[in-house]
Amino acid sequence: MKMRLGELADKLDLVLDGDPDCLIEGISTLTNSRANTVSFLANPRYRTALENTSAAAVIVREADRDFCPVNALISRNPYLSYAHLSALFAPNLSSEQAIHPSASIHPGAKLANHVRIGANAVIEDGVELAAGVEIGAGSVVQQACYIGAYSRLMANVTIYHHCRIGERVLIHSGSVIGSDGFGFTRDQDRWVKIHQLGRVLIGNDVEIGSNTSIDRGAIDDTVIGDNVIIDNLVHIAHNVSVGSGTAIAGCVGIAGSVEIGENCTFAGGVGVAGHLQIAPASTLLAMTMVTHSLKHPGVYASGIPADEQKIWQKNAVRFRQLNDMARRLRALEKALLPSS
Amino acid sequence: MKMRLGELADKLDLVLDGDPDCLIEGISTLTNSRANTVSFLANPRYRTALENTSAAAVIVREADRDFCPVNALISRNPYLSYAHLSALFAPNLSSEQAIHPSASIHPGAKLANHVRIGANAVIEDGVELAAGVEIGAGSVVQQACYIGAYSRLMANVTIYHHCRIGERVLIHSGSVIGSDGFGFTRDQDRWVKIHQLGRVLIGNDVEIGSNTSIDRGAIDDTVIGDNVIIDNLVHIAHNVSVGSGTAIAGCVGIAGSVEIGENCTFAGGVGVAGHLQIAPASTLLAMTMVTHSLKHPGVYASGIPADEQKIWQKNAVRFRQLNDMARRLRALEKALLPSS
Amino acid sequence: MKMRLGELADKLDLVLDGDPDCLIEGISTLTNSRANTVSFLANPRYRTALENTSAAAVIVREADRDFCPVNALISRNPYLSYAHLSALFAPNLSSEQAIHPSASIHPGAKLANHVRIGANAVIEDGVELAAGVEIGAGSVVQQACYIGAYSRLMANVTIYHHCRIGERVLIHSGSVIGSDGFGFTRDQDRWVKIHQLGRVLIGNDVEIGSNTSIDRGAIDDTVIGDNVIIDNLVHIAHNVSVGSGTAIAGCVGIAGSVEIGENCTFAGGVGVAGHLQIAPASTLLAMTMVTHSLKHPGVYASGIPADEQKIWQKNAVRFRQLNDMARRLRALEKALLPSS
Repeated sequence: MKMRLGELADKLDLVLDGDPDCLIEGISTLTNSRANTVSFLANPRYRTALENTSAAAVIVREADRDFCPVNALISRNPYLSYAHLSALFAPNLSSEQAIHPSASIHPGAKLANHVRIGANAVIEDGVELAAGVEIGAGSVVQQACYIGAYSRLMANVTIYHHCRIGERVLIHSGSVIGSDGFGFTRDQDRWVKIHQLGRVLIGNDVEIGSNTSIDRGAIDDTVIGDNVIIDNLVHIAHNVSVGSGTAIAGCVGIAGSVEIGENCTFAGGVGVAGHLQIAPASTLLAMTMVTHSLKHPGVYASGIPADEQKIWQKNAVRFRQLNDMARRLRALEKALLPSS
Repeated sequence: MKMRLGELADKLDLVLDGDPDCLIEGISTLTNSRANTVSFLANPRYRTALENTSAAAVIVREADRDFCPVNALISRNPYLSYAHLSALFAPNLSSEQAIHPSASIHPGAKLANHVRIGANAVIEDGVELAAGVEIGAGSVVQQACYIGAYSRLMANVTIYHHCRIGERVLIHSGSVIGSDGFGFTRDQDRWVKIHQLGRVLIGNDVEIGSNTSIDRGAIDDTVIGDNVIIDNLVHIAHNVSVGSGTAIAGCVGIAGSVEIGENCTFAGGVGVAGHLQIAPASTLLAMTMVTHSLKHPGVYASGIPADEQKIWQKNAVRFRQLNDMARRLRALEKALLPSS
Repeated sequence: MKMRLGELADKLDLVLDGDPDCLIEGISTLTNSRANTVSFLANPRYRTALENTSAAAVIVREADRDFCPVNALISRNPYLSYAHLSALFAPNLSSEQAIHPSASIHPGAKLANHVRIGANAVIEDGVELAAGVEIGAGSVVQQACYIGAYSRLMANVTIYHHCRIGERVLIHSGSVIGSDGFGFTRDQDRWVKIHQLGRVLIGNDVEIGSNTSIDRGAIDDTVIGDNVIIDNLVHIAHNVSVGSGTAIAGCVGIAGSVEIGENCTFAGGVGVAGHLQIAPASTLLAMTMVTHSLKHPGVYASGIPADEQKIWQKNAVRFRQLNDMARRLRALEKALLPSS
């Protein structure tokens, strides 16, 4: 994959200050730049790296142009331009065969034009795959699912029956959509299963990482809004709804029936207890433990940051005395500061 | 799937106060009720929803019967009746073919009557599948496993060699049973693998969610008791034993050789360090960190609930001074309250 | 699998104090010992179990020899000798067929001698498998990957395109290597994908547990050093580097671009925020939350250990007042201890 720098500037709609015939073969970071690549300066504090770059060209803001010792591509938002650039250099990995002969496709499935299905994939009865859908090797799409146009399942994805997935959705390997919600009730001393009759509905332009699980609803559906992005090893329980534009990083667990507003950001390892609401545009820092609804947008955190074990241990022991300490402090104040 | 309300009442062994010929097509929640469905009132605080329901019938306690504006099904435990109802409306997803021709079944495997095996599933040498077992598409059952009657693996499940699974067990997609325990020892500056020679033994009436991992034992076995229910993305390390009737919610991690008693409840995100005991009937709230054995039944918790980040940060800084604060508080008491 | 005790002593390079013709069929733990097995005493506090053992032979230190009522194998490091012993009794599970006929192997893949490929596995174009590589049933190795000699993928593993895996690597089921890093940027009110063009590079003698995800780098590569051992359900984000000899237990999450030194130990459930450095030889206790770089080797911890819920709740409420308490304590000191 090679491209003239002038052509590349045109495709990214950027002004080029330099040689349009320079040949570009890839992308590199400023701190690890290589010849014949394009790099970018998104954060001014890397300006020293810019001045020492080995890249053939760098995407910079107008204000950084004079510090660029090589070809400059002028952008109002270099990081966004880099995102567009990354799409140009993404490899096309489609196989020659549209439908691999080893795939198992039920005659009751409906496949639109330009559908691609990988080796040993399984498409069950009543499934409908819209135009341009790609199903990776070993993936299983169970009965009566609908997958919207240009959506892609990577290898070894599982979609349970009757789920609906929007357009341009990307689901990574090992993820499971539509497994049963964790619904049981006690009959005397036994757990009795509550069969999970809802579905998972996924909007358009969603990305779901690897080894993530999204359970189907008990009665109503689990709903993932448009343009939601979800990382690896995330657990989304039954009847959760995730508002559009929300980002959920790795290892997050969301218990049942939680309602997450639009445009929230969940850092890694956050946990949310069941039946809570999270206000739109909330940000939850890493490993936050949410045990009550967050009704107002804001930045939330919890937990204790890492410390040397010996110090931590002494403090952790005192945590167990904290209520007692508070009472004793109050008693001291009362005894000694009469005005308090 | 349609059923007369009278027939439905008979199957659930409930008294019907209403029209037995009313035709029922599904289940709905009270807050999102639909015509031709049955709903239920498990919690009296939703009585307003009951009074405004659009459902054709509602399962209610005798005490709530008079508030039900539609057909009433009288139950001593509406939530349990709903569980039974959910089984009636669970779709039958069995394919026409008992054994899909693309499945790879070793001639040394023994299949009892009414076994069903999905597309591209793999059954290795020496495997024994009891009557009514269903193996989902793409699942792999390795050498010499035994799977008891009416147990079901959904799609893309992996069972390592020599594991034993009881009757009526349900294992969801992406889960892995019998992977090697994390056993290594240092030989000078290198990790040396300890081969994991135990098995995983799973009792009867167990359910395991999606993308859960249960490791085989190092020498002895990892043991999951009868009627244990386990959610998604749970990690159960080697030689753990889980007592019967215990429930483990999503994202829980149990380190090696932990012994969990019967009828415990683990909320999401709990972590238990290695070689500990958890007393029977213990309840661990979400994200509890267990670093010492819990010898007595009880409700346990830990962690810091979410707060606004600015407030949390100030408090988290003070946590590092907590031991110092406790000493200073004691010094004040000694100096100023001679009797203390 | 049976072996004379004398032969076993020779293979483990241990001195035998006992009957070389005793027949050994397996391994047992001291606390659950069985006839015709070898056990080991690694920790002197189990000496009572030694004295009551039913094993045919026990690996002991010279100092424990006199307490051993049965055949003794004398070792300077019984636990390491047990590791070597475990390798002798590990079952050989290779199938008769080197390449299962149902595997889908692209003609553009290059397979060295003694490669084994399981049922329904998929090997794509440009893949290179070195001598002795084993690919488990249902595993998918995407375009242009390289897998070094004697490495093994268990069943249902997924390796994305262009990744490189060293020699003698073992990857357990459900794990995903090379899925896209979680890279997006906002374009006004929309998430725009940053295509992930780096690879995952895995060194030699690495083990990766089940259902673990290691993402490919955004531009540069994600790098796992030699002899790294990683447990189940671990999330390693894009551009992380893990130094050789580091051990990472289950449910750990490492955010993007974290640099982990050599010979670190991460207990279960640890979380590390993005772009941090962890000094070599650091130990992080279970569920530690790392939000700043750990520049010096040491033992680190965080979090609040489990307590009875009623007690915990009172203390957790006080945590929210901790900054206030610290100020009030200081005020008391100032008012009442003029010298402070």
